[in-house]
Amino acid sequence: MKISIIKIGGNVIDFPEKLDEFLSLFSKFPGYKILVHGGGIMASRFGESMGVMPEMVDGRRITDKDTLDIVTMVYAGLINKNMVAKLQALKVNAIGMCGADGNLIRSIKRPVKGIDYGYVGDVQEVNTTLASQFLEGGLIPVVNAITHDRKGQLLNTNADSIASALATSLAKDHQVNLYFCFNKKGVLVDEKNENSIIPLINEDIYKELKKENVIHSGMIPKLDNAFEALHKGVNHVWIGKAENLLLAAKGKLSGTTIERQRYDLY
Amino acid sequence: MKISIIKIGGNVIDFPEKLDEFLSLFSKFPGYKILVHGGGIMASRFGESMGVMPEMVDGRRITDKDTLDIVTMVYAGLINKNMVAKLQALKVNAIGMCGADGNLIRSIKRPVKGIDYGYVGDVQEVNTTLASQFLEGGLIPVVNAITHDRKGQLLNTNADSIASALATSLAKDHQVNLYFCFNKKGVLVDEKNENSIIPLINEDIYKELKKENVIHSGMIPKLDNAFEALHKGVNHVWIGKAENLLLAAKGKLSGTTIERQRYDLY
Repeated sequence: MKISIIKIGGNVIDFPEKLDEFLSLFSKFPGYKILVHGGGIMASRFGESMGVMPEMVDGRRITDKDTLDIVTMVYAGLINKNMVAKLQALKVNAIGMCGADGNLIRSIKRPVKGIDYGYVGDVQEVNTTLASQFLEGGLIPVVNAITHDRKGQLLNTNADSIASALATSLAKDHQVNLYFCFNKKGVLVDEKNENSIIPLINEDIYKELKKENVIHSGMIPKLDNAFEALHKGVNHVWIGKAENLLLAAKGKLSGTTIERQRYDLY
Repeated sequence: MKISIIKIGGNVIDFPEKLDEFLSLFSKFPGYKILVHGGGIMASRFGESMGVMPEMVDGRRITDKDTLDIVTMVYAGLINKNMVAKLQALKVNAIGMCGADGNLIRSIKRPVKGIDYGYVGDVQEVNTTLASQFLEGGLIPVVNAITHDRKGQLLNTNADSIASALATSLAKDHQVNLYFCFNKKGVLVDEKNENSIIPLINEDIYKELKKENVIHSGMIPKLDNAFEALHKGVNHVWIGKAENLLLAAKGKLSGTTIERQRYDLY
């Protein structure tokens, strides 16, 4: 099978109009597909309304018991089920899943090394049999950022990591492409110029771009993550804006495509 | 297939120890099975902590937009996913589902007749193909009280009605038993005596018991509902305490069994 794993971020989820627009695009996206989402901004807002303040260390959420309850409610409940209902209205046979459902994603609680992140999970294993069966049966999994340890504990997990884990695990038996939708049009040469997109990056280009400081800070973990996925067998990784997803699917110029192999055109 | 639909109420869900005990029993319950739950008490508590007060008319929750968000978070998120994780730890391959997931249960927004219940759904259609496929594939659906209208709207639905709808729909092709766990040991002759359980009720007995005012008030809609399910092909309906569920499964005396046919022993 040719499978696309598509991850959307808070910049889409938190705006009803943008979300509707994205879901319409997603419904038209060709082939087998899995949607992955988190929803941190909405979780923070709900938490605050209940007196639970978000605690972040290096941009990562510390997940105590109350915070775990909130992200479980917001990711697996509110956001996931509303997306599924909207996709069903678009004739997409979506099925919302957290990692515990059908044991789709097993993780382990992150060991305490200096910082105790609390109930945060690092992905250990993906149930690719179930995912493949669902896709073959015409179901479209909509996967949120809650996983479990198979010992009865839910764990808050980074949605990018879930998308990567699904992609690399399924890549063992299938041709998998991974799409990260974020708040920029792609990897930019000039951060201030939204249109200065680098269309294609491979490892050699990446090294050069890092050396010249064109790529730095927040973009580095995203690209490291992308290359790790490529090394584990993912066909290509795409980074760009949700609204350009269909162009990307059609192979048209939009966003940044990350590939392992060297291209002659460079 | 022989399928058991088991519905648990707030008196189990709201007490962690009771819930763990129940899930352990459920894991041992033989054969194909589907678990159905709501969680009204917990939803009220979370709503209140967010400043959304529950509004009840004749024991039914009025579901405005905020309340719908809360029940979606609590039923489909917090309660459902924690139960699934706990069942997975017990080696039950549970999969949490609301009615929107895989279009399992389609409902329509209740028409306004005097009272506007808001975003409340009445069940219209059950995707028995999907439910049967999941059961055959070894998955155990854990179904919560959120459904959808297939036009993108989630709807709050009575969990007893969901259990009945699943049972009657599946009864067309399968042998289905329906178990309602509630806060009493069964239908009682004397409300003040927990052990005065009526073991078996059929329609003739029911008429007599109503005439003699042994069965009245809150028990009548439960039993009407049970007989409706029997008329639609359900094999038998059981009402009792969650802790006696395994006895019921083994055909031992516990709770009240409701059957359509007349028995000679009466």
